[in-house]
Amino acid sequence: MALIVQKYGGTSVGSPERILAVAKRVERWRAAGHQLVVVVSAMSGETNRLLALAKEISTSPDPRELDVVASTGEQVTIGLLAMALIEHGFKARSYTGAQVKILTDDAFTKARIVSIDEQNIRADLAGGTVVIVAGFQGVDEDGNITTLGRGGSDTSAVAVAAALKADECQIYTDVDGVYTTDPRIVPEARRLKTVTFEEMLEMASLGSKVLQIRSVEFAGKYKVRLRVLSSFEEDGEGTLITFEEDEKMEKAVISGIAFNRDEAKITVMGVPDRPGVAYAILGPIGEANIDVDMIIQNASANGMTDLSFTVNRNEYTKAMDVLNRQVKDQIKATDIRGDAKICKVSIVGVGMRTHAGIASKTFRTLAEEGINIQMISTSEIKISVVIDEKYMELAVRALHRAFGLDQAA
Amino acid sequence: MALIVQKYGGTSVGSPERILAVAKRVERWRAAGHQLVVVVSAMSGETNRLLALAKEISTSPDPRELDVVASTGEQVTIGLLAMALIEHGFKARSYTGAQVKILTDDAFTKARIVSIDEQNIRADLAGGTVVIVAGFQGVDEDGNITTLGRGGSDTSAVAVAAALKADECQIYTDVDGVYTTDPRIVPEARRLKTVTFEEMLEMASLGSKVLQIRSVEFAGKYKVRLRVLSSFEEDGEGTLITFEEDEKMEKAVISGIAFNRDEAKITVMGVPDRPGVAYAILGPIGEANIDVDMIIQNASANGMTDLSFTVNRNEYTKAMDVLNRQVKDQIKATDIRGDAKICKVSIVGVGMRTHAGIASKTFRTLAEEGINIQMISTSEIKISVVIDEKYMELAVRALHRAFGLDQAA
Repeated sequence: MALIVQKYGGTSVGSPERILAVAKRVERWRAAGHQLVVVVSAMSGETNRLLALAKEISTSPDPRELDVVASTGEQVTIGLLAMALIEHGFKARSYTGAQVKILTDDAFTKARIVSIDEQNIRADLAGGTVVIVAGFQGVDEDGNITTLGRGGSDTSAVAVAAALKADECQIYTDVDGVYTTDPRIVPEARRLKTVTFEEMLEMASLGSKVLQIRSVEFAGKYKVRLRVLSSFEEDGEGTLITFEEDEKMEKAVISGIAFNRDEAKITVMGVPDRPGVAYAILGPIGEANIDVDMIIQNASANGMTDLSFTVNRNEYTKAMDVLNRQVKDQIKATDIRGDAKICKVSIVGVGMRTHAGIASKTFRTLAEEGINIQMISTSEIKISVVIDEKYMELAVRALHRAFGLDQAA
Repeated sequence: MALIVQKYGGTSVGSPERILAVAKRVERWRAAGHQLVVVVSAMSGETNRLLALAKEISTSPDPRELDVVASTGEQVTIGLLAMALIEHGFKARSYTGAQVKILTDDAFTKARIVSIDEQNIRADLAGGTVVIVAGFQGVDEDGNITTLGRGGSDTSAVAVAAALKADECQIYTDVDGVYTTDPRIVPEARRLKTVTFEEMLEMASLGSKVLQIRSVEFAGKYKVRLRVLSSFEEDGEGTLITFEEDEKMEKAVISGIAFNRDEAKITVMGVPDRPGVAYAILGPIGEANIDVDMIIQNASANGMTDLSFTVNRNEYTKAMDVLNRQVKDQIKATDIRGDAKICKVSIVGVGMRTHAGIASKTFRTLAEEGINIQMISTSEIKISVVIDEKYMELAVRALHRAFGLDQAA
C-alpha cells in the first residue's frame, strides 16, 4: 500500500464526463489499496472566464480580490470530484487551500507556499477517505485567499506530496509523458521512461510545457518522486522524473531537444570594452521589468565589443525603445540591432557532462543543413543556439536524428 | 452617520455592468458618510449553472460537497464588487462566509446561522472600508463550508445587520417594495410605505416572493429595521418593515392580497369521526416528507366526517399515492378525491384584529363574482380561501378593489 498524490489539470477535468473518468481512475487506485490525495485544477476555460469577468470590472483588478474570484474555479472541481467518488460508494472529502491549510505568503496572484498542515489529510487517509485538494490556491497568515499563479496546481500537488512524504506524485496531463522533443514537430519523438530533475528543469525553462517549472524545483528540493502521465490513457507508465543520473535506466547522452520561438535578439554594437558597460546596457532593461534570457559578449577587438541578449518577443519593442532612448548615446554605441525572427534550440542531457564532442556534433549537424548559428550559450547539461526561426523545425529534426533520439533508433 | 447593511440579489449583480451599477450606489452611500456592509448573492443564473453541473455528476449530490460547489457563486460576486469599488478609489474588502466567520450548524444545503463574529468587519468599518460579505453561506464548527438554502442571502444580510446592530438593513431587489398585491395581476396595486413583520410573514408564506421568510423571522426576532428597495431605481424609498402596528403610517385594515397557485387539494371522504383519525391520515403523509398547508375538518354527521388538506402541487401525485396505498383501506374511507386546479387567495392585515366584518366582506365579494369557496382557513391577521384556479385573477382584483387597496382609492 502506497500513499499516492495525483494531480489532474484543467483538460483532464474539463467536463462532467471527464471528471467522472478521473473519478474512475482514482477509484481503481483506491480499490488497489492505496491511500489517495487528489489535487485538481479548475475545469479548462474556467479560470479564463473568471479573469475575463474581472477585466470587465477593472482594468487592473485588485490582486487580493482577483484571487478571491480566481480561486473559485478549483473549488468547483474539488466538490464535483468528491461527489462523483461518493456517488460511487467511496469515502471522499474536498478541501480548499484554506481548509487544508496551505499557508502561503501574501503575494496575491503569485503567492509561494510556506507550509502545509497535513493533519486533517492524514486523519482522513487513515480512515480510508480519498482526499481532494484544490490546486493553485492557499491562504495567508491573515486568512486571505491567495493563488500561486498560472500552473500553480502542479506546485500544490508536489508541495502536498512533500508534506505527506508521499511515495509518488503523479501529474496527469493531456500528454503521456516527457518526450525527446515535441512530437508535432518530429513525429519520431520518443517518450522518455525517465528524465532527471536537472534535465526536466532545463527543458521546462526552455519552453517544454509539460510541468510548471516551480513544481519541478520544489520536487527536486524535497525529493518528491514525480511522474508525468496521461489522463486520457488507461495504463500508461508516463515519465518518471529521477533525482540521480544513476537512477536512469536509459543511458542516453542526450535526453531531448527543446525549442522556443518566443524570444527576440538584440545586439548593442561597438561599445567600449570597459568595466560597467554590461550593467550600463542591462541595468535599464531590468528596471523596465524586462526579463533577459541569454547574454553573450565576445572578446573585444580594438577596445570595442558587441553585446547581444535575448528577451521575450512580447517585450522586444519595449526593450529596443529603452536602449535607443536611455542607453545608446550614453555608452556611445555605434548601433543597436534587433531581430524578432529568431528561435532558440537546445540540446539537453545530463550525459553531456561526461561526454565530449556534443557541442561539435551539434554545430556540424546544423552546418550540414546550411543553418547559420547566431548565438551560442552552454550550461553543464545543455547547449542552446539561436538561429533564424524559419529553420527551427529543420534544426530540431536534424538534431533529434543526429543524437539518436528517433523512435527507430 | 449610520451603519447600513445592504443586500443585492442575483438580478441586481447579474452582469459586470450591473455590478458596476451596484458599486456606484454603494459609493453614493459611502460618500454620504455612512458605514457600509454589502451582502451579495451569486450572479443570476450562476447557482443554477453550478447545481446543474453537480446533477451531471451525481443524481443525489453529497450535501457537503454540493455546498462547496454552490458557495463559489457568491464568492465570485464579492471579489468582483470589491474590485469595482477599489478601482473607483474606495477602500473595500471581501469576505466569504468562512472568513467572516458566519458560524452555522452542519445541516448542509439548509444550514442555520448560529453566530456571527463581527470583529473583523467592525475593524474594517472603523477604518473606512466598505465590507463585502458573501450571502447564502457560512462555515460549521469543523470548518466545512455550508449554505443556507435558496434565498439565504436575505437571511445573511439580516443576521449581519443584527450582529452589528446596524441602523438599517436594505434589501435591494428587482421590485421597488412590497405591494398590496402582484401588479402583474392587478395594475392598480399600490406600493406599501410600511408593512408590519406579521403581515410580511403572512404574505411571504403565502407566495409573495419579495423576501425569504426566514430573513423576515430573523429580522423580527432581532429587531432589525428592514427595508425593501429596487436596485434599478435611483431614489426609491421602498417599503419599510415595521415592528409595531403603531409605527404604521397608513392605517388601512387590510395591507394586501396574496395568492398562490402552487397547491393541490385532497379530501378523504367518509371517515369515522373518532380520535386518531386525523393522525392516521396525515401521519403517513408526514413520513413521506410531504408538507401540508391548510387542514380542514368539518363537524361530523352520522359519526362520519370528511378531512381536507392542501399540499404542494409537485407532491400531489405522491400524496394521492400514499393515501390510496397506505391509508384508505386502513381507515375505511369511502373515497379519496383530489384537485390540483385550485388556488389560494388570502387577505392579510394586522387591522383585521380589531375590525369585524372582514370575513363576511370577503365572502360577499367572492359571491358577487359567482366564485365558489372550497376551503376557508383563518388566522389572527389573515383569511385564506381555496377556489378554482381559473377564478384567481378575478378574485384577487375584486378583493383588491373591495378592500380599498386600488391606487385610486
